[in-house]
Amino acid sequence: MKPDGVLQPGDTIGVLGGGQLGRMMALAAARLGLKTHIFAQASDEPACQVAAAHTLGDFAEDAALARFADAVDVVTYEFENVPASAAAFLAARRPVRPGPFALEKTQDRVIEKDFLNSIGVPTVPYAAVDDAGALIRHIGQIGRPAILKTRRFGYDGKGQIMLREGSDVGAAFRALGQTPCILEGVAQFEREISVVAARGLDGSFAAYDVCENLHENHILSETRAPAEIAPQTAAAAMDITHRILDALDYVGVIAVEMFELAETDAAGRRVERVLVNEVAPRVHNSGHWTLDGAITSQFEQHVRAIAGWPLGSPRRHGARVVMNNLIGEAADGWRRLAAEPGACLHLYGKGEARSGRKMGHVTRIFPKGEA
Amino acid sequence: MKPDGVLQPGDTIGVLGGGQLGRMMALAAARLGLKTHIFAQASDEPACQVAAAHTLGDFAEDAALARFADAVDVVTYEFENVPASAAAFLAARRPVRPGPFALEKTQDRVIEKDFLNSIGVPTVPYAAVDDAGALIRHIGQIGRPAILKTRRFGYDGKGQIMLREGSDVGAAFRALGQTPCILEGVAQFEREISVVAARGLDGSFAAYDVCENLHENHILSETRAPAEIAPQTAAAAMDITHRILDALDYVGVIAVEMFELAETDAAGRRVERVLVNEVAPRVHNSGHWTLDGAITSQFEQHVRAIAGWPLGSPRRHGARVVMNNLIGEAADGWRRLAAEPGACLHLYGKGEARSGRKMGHVTRIFPKGEA
Repeated sequence: MKPDGVLQPGDTIGVLGGGQLGRMMALAAARLGLKTHIFAQASDEPACQVAAAHTLGDFAEDAALARFADAVDVVTYEFENVPASAAAFLAARRPVRPGPFALEKTQDRVIEKDFLNSIGVPTVPYAAVDDAGALIRHIGQIGRPAILKTRRFGYDGKGQIMLREGSDVGAAFRALGQTPCILEGVAQFEREISVVAARGLDGSFAAYDVCENLHENHILSETRAPAEIAPQTAAAAMDITHRILDALDYVGVIAVEMFELAETDAAGRRVERVLVNEVAPRVHNSGHWTLDGAITSQFEQHVRAIAGWPLGSPRRHGARVVMNNLIGEAADGWRRLAAEPGACLHLYGKGEARSGRKMGHVTRIFPKGEA
Repeated sequence: MKPDGVLQPGDTIGVLGGGQLGRMMALAAARLGLKTHIFAQASDEPACQVAAAHTLGDFAEDAALARFADAVDVVTYEFENVPASAAAFLAARRPVRPGPFALEKTQDRVIEKDFLNSIGVPTVPYAAVDDAGALIRHIGQIGRPAILKTRRFGYDGKGQIMLREGSDVGAAFRALGQTPCILEGVAQFEREISVVAARGLDGSFAAYDVCENLHENHILSETRAPAEIAPQTAAAAMDITHRILDALDYVGVIAVEMFELAETDAAGRRVERVLVNEVAPRVHNSGHWTLDGAITSQFEQHVRAIAGWPLGSPRRHGARVVMNNLIGEAADGWRRLAAEPGACLHLYGKGEARSGRKMGHVTRIFPKGEA
């Protein structure tokens, strides 16, 4: 790496985490002539199968982290739960991109929403809940239904409970382990949308089309690009994303999950607005469609950003693109999907198709001129 | 692998050769959840950087070949000069796709042209040349200019000499090492075109657009897809390719390089026809545009074919696609290319940018509606 923080072809990207996101990052890095070194817990993890090297260890092992840092030119990660101590340890040795500040602001749901509101980005109403008394107090203000979530480590619906009329709130708090929580109001949304975007080392910005996300059992099942929303709503979503990236002094790809709300104003006109639900400081499942459906995939875009390279074009192929996750035994349908004309199949090299496990995805591109 | 010869996700493809073609094959296999094991001569070769495993050795080492065969489910290759003995050794242990018959018919320029003519595919006039006397005899029939080439191992213009009026033919034969040669007539062609196509284990056929190839110093410099040729010429090129694949009982991706000739018939009408110049039983540089410019890349298509999977769609993105090789120090322009909006940059992970060495390529997709 050069003193200006820019990687050269042949340099090595260190990735914390060996899952499918790290795998697709490694494949994208290889296209650009960059090597990848994975920090993983087992050598058969999906990313290790396609990387030049890996270090086995966990985030509490300074010796392993030091070996990893010595072997790479820049550090990135495929998930936001990198402990602050490990991020600081690595940042003292190599550039960590996105930086520890972005991790700090997005690992904890209360800190994240405080941060968003502080830069004028709207969210649902929320309150920190440290004990059962606080929960009872706040649910009176926020109303029901509301969602109680752990502040940290939740994903795919894990670590959250819906509180409806008559729900036993004390039991819900106990079920989440009496750990620090957040109580969130429930948005009556029209659509769940997301913006996957990147910010370069030079502050440049590039965003993919706003897309619409459909979930099943709290797990993303389908992404449609572009979302069928009003142009001014899309512009508002882009603007919010851009502000978040700048405020975080971000380098890399980010995903901002939002709710689109439709309301009727005093004059009877339909008004759309967006709230931010969650920020993921990394490549994101709702950006997988870009692998086949855009000039530059989100994985290449992330690699370009953290390498200090110019961002690539996020332009979409075709009129619209639809991505479906293959979850659990849905991946057993690989042969049928492989035979479907025009379907782009991706499998992640995972051994066992456990229920709820993301095994792969399939992308379909609908050409211009075909609805 | 199942008894029907079809690979399952998680199975391993063995690739003979560790260059950029093997590298891009490994990246494509990873997308589909398949592992790759490279047979290479050094662990820093481009393909080894992205493969789950590699075996170091050369084709004369049976022990290395046996270890490699034991570790894989199917064997393929990235170049046609795999010795017949090694191919036979491996084929006795694992399926080799494309099969040894395809190698036998394409490694030697005389055998290749005999084969093509035997199935009614036209070539330039040619003759086998085993000694200087034969050369003098045949050049009288074929005329000048003519090209003297070694029968085997030539590529990128290596191992060939143009014989013009006044050339010393004896000196040319000595310069090529007095090795078995072929003397070829020179086609007065309009364009050099190629068809990259695949045949599945079930005999299915899929071809990319006929493309036009431009060379500099005998090395491919640019591929344009589609070639600007008459529809009936494109259909003839496709038909020839299909016949070659069927005659070879081929499994995998093939490239057929052709000359397009334009002549004027007795009635004064322009008539286009094609001759086959060379057949490459593998993925090919003139198919690199498919990585970004088609639904299924040639590398994924090859993996699908040799895995016994259904072939993917070869449909092109955009109105036209142009691929330029980055040869030698042209790759030093990577940063400018990375900054060019819409340019898709590929670098092969090679250390030293020697003159004439293929270091990477760049693809540009021109959308429909833009010329």
